[in-house]
Amino acid sequence: MNHFLSVKEVYNLDVLVRNALLFKKTPFADKHLGKNRTIGLLFFNSSLRTRLSTQRAAQNLGMEVIVMNVGADSWQLEMEEGVIMNSDKAEHVKEAAAVVGQYCDIVGVRSFPSLTDREADYSEKVMNQFVKYTGRPIISLESATRHPLQSLTDLITISEYKTKARPKVVLTWAPHVKALPQCVPNSFSEWMNVADVDFVITHPEGYELAPEFSGNAKITHNQNEAFEGADFIYAKNWSSYTHYGQILNQDPAWMVTMDKMKLTDNAKFMHCLPVRRNVVVEDAVLDSDHSIVIPQAGNRVWAAQVVLKEMLMGLNRKESPYLF
Amino acid sequence: MNHFLSVKEVYNLDVLVRNALLFKKTPFADKHLGKNRTIGLLFFNSSLRTRLSTQRAAQNLGMEVIVMNVGADSWQLEMEEGVIMNSDKAEHVKEAAAVVGQYCDIVGVRSFPSLTDREADYSEKVMNQFVKYTGRPIISLESATRHPLQSLTDLITISEYKTKARPKVVLTWAPHVKALPQCVPNSFSEWMNVADVDFVITHPEGYELAPEFSGNAKITHNQNEAFEGADFIYAKNWSSYTHYGQILNQDPAWMVTMDKMKLTDNAKFMHCLPVRRNVVVEDAVLDSDHSIVIPQAGNRVWAAQVVLKEMLMGLNRKESPYLF
Amino acid sequence: MNHFLSVKEVYNLDVLVRNALLFKKTPFADKHLGKNRTIGLLFFNSSLRTRLSTQRAAQNLGMEVIVMNVGADSWQLEMEEGVIMNSDKAEHVKEAAAVVGQYCDIVGVRSFPSLTDREADYSEKVMNQFVKYTGRPIISLESATRHPLQSLTDLITISEYKTKARPKVVLTWAPHVKALPQCVPNSFSEWMNVADVDFVITHPEGYELAPEFSGNAKITHNQNEAFEGADFIYAKNWSSYTHYGQILNQDPAWMVTMDKMKLTDNAKFMHCLPVRRNVVVEDAVLDSDHSIVIPQAGNRVWAAQVVLKEMLMGLNRKESPYLF
Repeated sequence: MNHFLSVKEVYNLDVLVRNALLFKKTPFADKHLGKNRTIGLLFFNSSLRTRLSTQRAAQNLGMEVIVMNVGADSWQLEMEEGVIMNSDKAEHVKEAAAVVGQYCDIVGVRSFPSLTDREADYSEKVMNQFVKYTGRPIISLESATRHPLQSLTDLITISEYKTKARPKVVLTWAPHVKALPQCVPNSFSEWMNVADVDFVITHPEGYELAPEFSGNAKITHNQNEAFEGADFIYAKNWSSYTHYGQILNQDPAWMVTMDKMKLTDNAKFMHCLPVRRNVVVEDAVLDSDHSIVIPQAGNRVWAAQVVLKEMLMGLNRKESPYLF
Repeated sequence: MNHFLSVKEVYNLDVLVRNALLFKKTPFADKHLGKNRTIGLLFFNSSLRTRLSTQRAAQNLGMEVIVMNVGADSWQLEMEEGVIMNSDKAEHVKEAAAVVGQYCDIVGVRSFPSLTDREADYSEKVMNQFVKYTGRPIISLESATRHPLQSLTDLITISEYKTKARPKVVLTWAPHVKALPQCVPNSFSEWMNVADVDFVITHPEGYELAPEFSGNAKITHNQNEAFEGADFIYAKNWSSYTHYGQILNQDPAWMVTMDKMKLTDNAKFMHCLPVRRNVVVEDAVLDSDHSIVIPQAGNRVWAAQVVLKEMLMGLNRKESPYLF
Repeated sequence: MNHFLSVKEVYNLDVLVRNALLFKKTPFADKHLGKNRTIGLLFFNSSLRTRLSTQRAAQNLGMEVIVMNVGADSWQLEMEEGVIMNSDKAEHVKEAAAVVGQYCDIVGVRSFPSLTDREADYSEKVMNQFVKYTGRPIISLESATRHPLQSLTDLITISEYKTKARPKVVLTWAPHVKALPQCVPNSFSEWMNVADVDFVITHPEGYELAPEFSGNAKITHNQNEAFEGADFIYAKNWSSYTHYGQILNQDPAWMVTMDKMKLTDNAKFMHCLPVRRNVVVEDAVLDSDHSIVIPQAGNRVWAAQVVLKEMLMGLNRKESPYLF
């Protein structure tokens, strides 16, 4: 694996999930692989799970970790080509990315969308500049349109908890007080569409995901219908893609409740976190046996670790091709 | 040792102090103990000594360290049960604590009091939620009412510098420009009350500590009388407990001066730092041989290290009970 | 090497550069040297290259690294002697520096100049207090008047890329939108003046560097003349030293362009970064083969690593003098 930006870089999804679950049993089995390797984690945005789990994963592999809050720790970055840089942005991404590449063997980048410029966001402008200029494998820590480490985690978690060969997985939109990115639902859809699950998306009108992400998923505006017989309920708010970045609906009737969970086949409740209690989902669900949000978050380590392992093996192959 | 929140978790104070002083001589003697163990240090508030000394202590034990400024790096946390989370707090401590516990073997938390809600502060609401939800040993890096790593450090330092079997130790209130927590004096009192010292507290009227902390200490409003024959002067400002969080007094006559030090039995001067020079204590004292504030701060490493060692041994016992 | 604050601490410049280039070939050859050693990196100001490259260098030597953003992570520091500390500065540098010295074997400090008080800046007030009170080897991560790790990097880079025994090296002032320190040009001049190069400085009137830094360098106000036959063009903006901290000139005619590069002997273009494109230098130069700014930034690792190696060897000699 060179970069890890979406499900497209994954050669064999089943093997990846299986290897991740192996790490859960023997976390330090490949500690030699990361010796004398450094990962740089660049955060343009806040992070708790991604920040901690990726550090832990890298350390489990014996890597050194350097974390940097871009902006707070260093300089604001200019992303546009050809501009006269007389604004408050002191450094161009061309230099910043290339320089970070000089110091790190693998680079992780978190950069959320603007939610104002759909074209820029959906062209993955920022992430692609890091891919172009860093000269190192890039691991997405959530980009403008995707959160692949989360989605791999979700797939690992579903594999662990499923009780049927082909479970019914429902992605449900839920209300929120702020306009949020489409990254998590986009990415989740992209991964579920290639996984061996019966995938359904439910959301109010106007919340259609971009077609390249929703793909062939069944889509319904009837949340109750979607929940019927479900094995996994994956709740998430997102802002509108069509009316880009807008909040069209805050109807509390879309909140996930125990009453709705009763429609399912004793489904597990999933969320990428952070989650707003009693807005997205009621306390009763999160505090019940339905909820697997904590072990789900725990699986972030194994997702990151299996991806980093693939990258480290790729680096080793490049540097010592005769050994392979 | 499971958690370390107060002196109550200490099984044998003398052994703990002795082992801490052993680490001072051979800092890396137990480097194997922390192998493949990660400590997460969560800071809701500023820190210099605690931040650096706990990192150093963990690294001396061979642990990996992950540091996070909660709020700046991640999300504002909701601490109340049952609320509809539509404010600026994006994540509930229930999830945040449990998730951190998924990534770390031991978790350190620093969270200062509000100084506005005495009941909430003195019930240790925040720290207790981490204890309840993290599922890992919690080490207090200073909570709403206590600073046990500081107090253990203080006891270590007194053991090192005492010239009498039972020294006279004086905790003196001193003026300050801001309203400060009662954590350090509370905690110091709690530890001195169970140590083999003659313990005296002196402060202006209205600055009585909560009775559960001051305990059986001798208390006087006459600072000069308290200083007479003292072996250790421990200065600290705190805001009022009775008129909660208020500044009742800024009388510079309470500042520790060389003249007052002359009343003592050539006492050592201690302070947890940071200290405001010429407000809490005059330059002449800090720059004299009386002052041991720097080696006192240095001892923070051995205090943290001996506590982490106990926790690591506890974890090992839990995971391999047949070996013990 | 005890401290590293300027070129004056360097015993043999040629050997230092040669050893740095050896590290570039075998980065981990001295990984044993830093075992059980901790470096503390204190940042009063933003940093990207220095932050990452010094971490990497220390890790290559097997050291533990603790990074702290002073101010954001801990407390504002008082730098004045004898003051009554009733302002917003909670801790005196006397205590802070000494305390950091208790936890770290080597301490790095970045502290930019005020650009308002020339006397304070040019007396290196802040850095010298760390030297005085920390009790540990201090490595400058850029001070009020110098950036020695950058200058060592520059010399390493010139050694690597030069095609003549004694190349012509030109330091050229360039326009900028903000008032910047004189650290980089001061330091670069100081190092070039003792290196085996033909050194020329060109800048508009009013931008004379302090004489102790410009030394015997040839100085001209005619940029074109300076560029003629040059082997290295080193561009940098700085604010006025004589009209201290002021911007006297923003003439875009001083920007480095491809037309000007044609006057040189196919010179390499260097800059310490971050660089404002199309203000300091035009895109065409940075994106051409003239530019070596990225490998130059990459060399920051080897510069820091060779300095830390010298410091570690000094510490070992002090602790085990009979072995040497």
